[in-house]
Amino acid sequence: MRMRIAVAGASGYVGGELLRLALGHPEVEVGALTAGDSAGSLLGAHQPHLAALADRTIVATTPEALAGHDVVFLALPHGRSAELAAQLPEDVLVVDCGADHRLRDAAAWQRWYGGEHAGHWPYGLPELPGAREALRGSRRVAVPGCYPTTATLAALPAVAAGLVAPEISVVAFSGTSGAGRAAKPHLLGSEVMGSATAYGVGGAHRHTPEIVQNLSGLGAGPVVVSFTPVLAPMPRGILAVVSAPLADAGIDGAQAREAYAKAFAAEPFVHLLPEGMQPATKSVVGSNTVQVQVEVDVDAGRLVATAAIDNLTKGTAGGAFQSVNLALGLDETLGLPTSGLAP
Amino acid sequence: MRMRIAVAGASGYVGGELLRLALGHPEVEVGALTAGDSAGSLLGAHQPHLAALADRTIVATTPEALAGHDVVFLALPHGRSAELAAQLPEDVLVVDCGADHRLRDAAAWQRWYGGEHAGHWPYGLPELPGAREALRGSRRVAVPGCYPTTATLAALPAVAAGLVAPEISVVAFSGTSGAGRAAKPHLLGSEVMGSATAYGVGGAHRHTPEIVQNLSGLGAGPVVVSFTPVLAPMPRGILAVVSAPLADAGIDGAQAREAYAKAFAAEPFVHLLPEGMQPATKSVVGSNTVQVQVEVDVDAGRLVATAAIDNLTKGTAGGAFQSVNLALGLDETLGLPTSGLAP
Amino acid sequence: MRMRIAVAGASGYVGGELLRLALGHPEVEVGALTAGDSAGSLLGAHQPHLAALADRTIVATTPEALAGHDVVFLALPHGRSAELAAQLPEDVLVVDCGADHRLRDAAAWQRWYGGEHAGHWPYGLPELPGAREALRGSRRVAVPGCYPTTATLAALPAVAAGLVAPEISVVAFSGTSGAGRAAKPHLLGSEVMGSATAYGVGGAHRHTPEIVQNLSGLGAGPVVVSFTPVLAPMPRGILAVVSAPLADAGIDGAQAREAYAKAFAAEPFVHLLPEGMQPATKSVVGSNTVQVQVEVDVDAGRLVATAAIDNLTKGTAGGAFQSVNLALGLDETLGLPTSGLAP
Amino acid sequence: MRMRIAVAGASGYVGGELLRLALGHPEVEVGALTAGDSAGSLLGAHQPHLAALADRTIVATTPEALAGHDVVFLALPHGRSAELAAQLPEDVLVVDCGADHRLRDAAAWQRWYGGEHAGHWPYGLPELPGAREALRGSRRVAVPGCYPTTATLAALPAVAAGLVAPEISVVAFSGTSGAGRAAKPHLLGSEVMGSATAYGVGGAHRHTPEIVQNLSGLGAGPVVVSFTPVLAPMPRGILAVVSAPLADAGIDGAQAREAYAKAFAAEPFVHLLPEGMQPATKSVVGSNTVQVQVEVDVDAGRLVATAAIDNLTKGTAGGAFQSVNLALGLDETLGLPTSGLAP
Repeated sequence: MRMRIAVAGASGYVGGELLRLALGHPEVEVGALTAGDSAGSLLGAHQPHLAALADRTIVATTPEALAGHDVVFLALPHGRSAELAAQLPEDVLVVDCGADHRLRDAAAWQRWYGGEHAGHWPYGLPELPGAREALRGSRRVAVPGCYPTTATLAALPAVAAGLVAPEISVVAFSGTSGAGRAAKPHLLGSEVMGSATAYGVGGAHRHTPEIVQNLSGLGAGPVVVSFTPVLAPMPRGILAVVSAPLADAGIDGAQAREAYAKAFAAEPFVHLLPEGMQPATKSVVGSNTVQVQVEVDVDAGRLVATAAIDNLTKGTAGGAFQSVNLALGLDETLGLPTSGLAP
Repeated sequence: MRMRIAVAGASGYVGGELLRLALGHPEVEVGALTAGDSAGSLLGAHQPHLAALADRTIVATTPEALAGHDVVFLALPHGRSAELAAQLPEDVLVVDCGADHRLRDAAAWQRWYGGEHAGHWPYGLPELPGAREALRGSRRVAVPGCYPTTATLAALPAVAAGLVAPEISVVAFSGTSGAGRAAKPHLLGSEVMGSATAYGVGGAHRHTPEIVQNLSGLGAGPVVVSFTPVLAPMPRGILAVVSAPLADAGIDGAQAREAYAKAFAAEPFVHLLPEGMQPATKSVVGSNTVQVQVEVDVDAGRLVATAAIDNLTKGTAGGAFQSVNLALGLDETLGLPTSGLAP
Repeated sequence: MRMRIAVAGASGYVGGELLRLALGHPEVEVGALTAGDSAGSLLGAHQPHLAALADRTIVATTPEALAGHDVVFLALPHGRSAELAAQLPEDVLVVDCGADHRLRDAAAWQRWYGGEHAGHWPYGLPELPGAREALRGSRRVAVPGCYPTTATLAALPAVAAGLVAPEISVVAFSGTSGAGRAAKPHLLGSEVMGSATAYGVGGAHRHTPEIVQNLSGLGAGPVVVSFTPVLAPMPRGILAVVSAPLADAGIDGAQAREAYAKAFAAEPFVHLLPEGMQPATKSVVGSNTVQVQVEVDVDAGRLVATAAIDNLTKGTAGGAFQSVNLALGLDETLGLPTSGLAP
Repeated sequence: MRMRIAVAGASGYVGGELLRLALGHPEVEVGALTAGDSAGSLLGAHQPHLAALADRTIVATTPEALAGHDVVFLALPHGRSAELAAQLPEDVLVVDCGADHRLRDAAAWQRWYGGEHAGHWPYGLPELPGAREALRGSRRVAVPGCYPTTATLAALPAVAAGLVAPEISVVAFSGTSGAGRAAKPHLLGSEVMGSATAYGVGGAHRHTPEIVQNLSGLGAGPVVVSFTPVLAPMPRGILAVVSAPLADAGIDGAQAREAYAKAFAAEPFVHLLPEGMQPATKSVVGSNTVQVQVEVDVDAGRLVATAAIDNLTKGTAGGAFQSVNLALGLDETLGLPTSGLAP
């Protein structure tokens, strides 16, 4: 089936990545491109890497502009997407790349984002147990945050198999595009090149409750998550280092590896690396692939799992198309690259 | 038509890019992967970004290993490809990504590379007048150097239309992957990050005679080229700044722009940017697109053209597939991405 | 002699570099730190790398705040420094790091900057013939632009010795800090990392007339300059590639080298590299050193000179202190680092 | 007092940084420069950023070449420094920048490095309780590893004050210069730019026992350490994220902050940042400063401390000079920069 898509927020980084993937998807026709301040200008002025769409005009983001499409992607600030989504027909597939429909718990939503909870939608992380089923046929998709995607996939088999105590420590290194395209002084190239700096330290990042929700939903009981994001001198990519105390001192590397191999055996986009190799963001940049590795530190009594994704591809736009494929009954992998752009 | 390809030099950067593009080409089946020292190991150990081929074994580069394929790509050091090509059947499409078959002039070959000239093959820069015709149906293709591709396309309309005196100055900024994968101290990340340095200054770079050959063949008489390459702190991409004295003081920007627009009007991969925009390597990374712009500096009496490509894609492996498409009678653009990976 | 300095524009990149050098200068006492929007905040919030000054408060930029200092550095937008300088006493050493007092020609000023020409001050490039003498004892210093410093020093011996025809081509790669600290979308780390892009192409950059002024003042007649700046993916550093037709076909590399060696023999900050080495921005980052090399391209009939500086150090704040040392009768090299920060 | 120094391993990154700092130290005279393969060449060929020493000749590393100096720095591979140190007079200050004399426990040495334990020397981390006293007057100094310096300083106040349970998790991002100058494929610029990848995961990095030794010696009992290093796309700098379970659920941020403020109040090189700011490697690059911050994550029940250093300065050569100053009875801070090179 052929789908006509609209992208709200076409001038930002997520919008650009949605369109890059759309151009490589065999069943997609690119319809309306909308934005706020950029309305009226050509897409080429904002996304000069999309030669095929350079002459398309961006229009204002309104329900009318988004009408008449099979799929509407919302790449908007939180709050704004819920507001807009409420005005779109129920039979249109609406994909929220923002945070508005990710959390199940209204209280958590209010604590972390403020304002009224818009409710939750089927969660676009097909690798999570139950998620694939919920996505099939759905007309609403909440795309996960990029950090939660990485951390969840790194920890999933360990938590689900009960290999670790439910005290998960996540330190994740992210490229700057995760912070978006708004011009802020601390995101200038002069500031970020050659520098690494943590932020949201001490549990202050809004992606924390989402990681908690994902890992607590695996059937092994609630988990506690300590999450520290680090801004890294690279444009794309997330590398997560996830560790937790072993549930039992006797658990060894082979056992951990077996659990990971089993959990991801049928996953088309998760690549458990051979022993001795470690995930690298460069290997997955531009692709929908997740590289994962797991080790057991016997001396420290901890399991240490690592995962790398592209924050804009598997972490947002690629994960979105993977969910769209499922929602529309297409092959889940259709049009999604698995090769990273290296070197 | 479906083609089965072999890649000699599969563990290097050009080999990796050929395979990345092969995985996205609808008519390609990946056959033998060969290399020298890496023979016997898995491709995943060398090209961890190619998840789909991770478990393929690399074999030794021999004529036998390369037999039975429709297309054989040679991504080998100069000298080695001519030697190997001489042992391959005439009806197999052999694509030399190295320098052995680029230069027409045996004396120039000997001066710049040493050793015996292996002859020249149809030159894989379809945008060059006459090249497309020579490539159609050919069973041998000499892939251009990455700098010559960039410099030639930037200068072509100006030289062909006689807008400039035949004294071309080229300063080109290249990502480090152009220097290959061999571990040399000056290419270490610690050395290149944050640094720019010229090399081969004063006409010492081997790509100079190739640029001269291309521009001297445009029908406007022989040209002299001053070429200065600069190693840039980025993994991929070439930005060339090409300038030359105006042939006539009255030539203005509009006239230059018109010549460029006309020259590239029908070119599927050349994107002459709108006025006011400049080529950026980030916009073309991973794609087969060339971004071009032209300006006239009235005060200095010079035309200044700029072009950006990805040295591994349009500059090597993408240009190679473009030529293969032509040689095999396929749509020239088949399987070749035009969107860069940005940001 | 001990000097008390004030820095107007202390929260920007030039201000930060002035203060970094001030902390390493044995005769400097840091007095008032002033700024516009940042007034009232601590310096540590803007210049977290200056641990020793973290608790100093920034005040508003006014003549009163700048009073009572021996040296006042103005690191302000053009127009603003001339306005402020006019209100400072004649016996205070005022150092304008901006463009207001660089050009001698009022018409050139108006063409390139607009508004009324504020006149010109002794030009802070001591390596330029006559400049050192003009700086000694002066109470006004116009700090050169960073591109003009690099291009002028690369071309100076060739032009002064009449080795080249007066048609100078300059292509220069600059780190992003040259564009300042104002948050603009195209300067975001996500945009600049991995990318190279030219700007001001075709003679549109305001530093062009300054290069022309410098090289035309060498006694060998007026020169014409074609200048193309390129934004490079690094925070600091400029690499200039300067070329020009040989004045005489018989000029060879040895002759060029001799002219450069002679011109720079007594210069404390210019390092003419040994044959076979090329300037690298990494080698001079953080230092007041200029690396220079010269080659002759016999085939192309051109002399090609290259130079690397740190745009913020020798290109601005270091050059400023070098001039201050001269103006105050101190050793020209006092407090100025010659070692770059590598790797 | 004036000291004459020799540097063994002058052509590597640590050697270069020792010399850069030596040139800025008012009491240092640079004597013999020695190396292995580079013997016989000029220093300028290896350390082009040290203009002042460009013409100095490197000689072979022998006890004879190192004789006649007040201080001998050994920047050599492990094993080699112990061997050489054994041949140097007892009254010469020998500073081992390698690992040979760091660990107290011979069994730990043999497990992690193999071969015979050379014994341990006064440990060059003056901020560690008791270390400063041991360094004063010593003629032997073991310079700490760069990761242990960062992790130890981040965790020290929390562990010493008993704020955390003794299960320390360290994830540290390091620039590539920490891996040295030997040309290895995975350290090529093409590989590291734009990429982040962990290594030595699961407790396999040799710096682990050194962190354990440091933190177990604080008087609060033995600690267990889980250490994961990440190779980051920057040439210099380490950012460590250190976390541990709170010893008591009631411990809050104010209490943690007070402990850190108290622990570091008198430390000249440790800069506990104001609340709301986080350490950034860019802020300390080239300096001997350590930036530290501490937060308490109430939800996760963990204390999270962060620290940034320059791996080559405070992490090696700067720490070495700090210890030398102490050993020789000089002001501990003499000649050591506290300003980082930013932006």
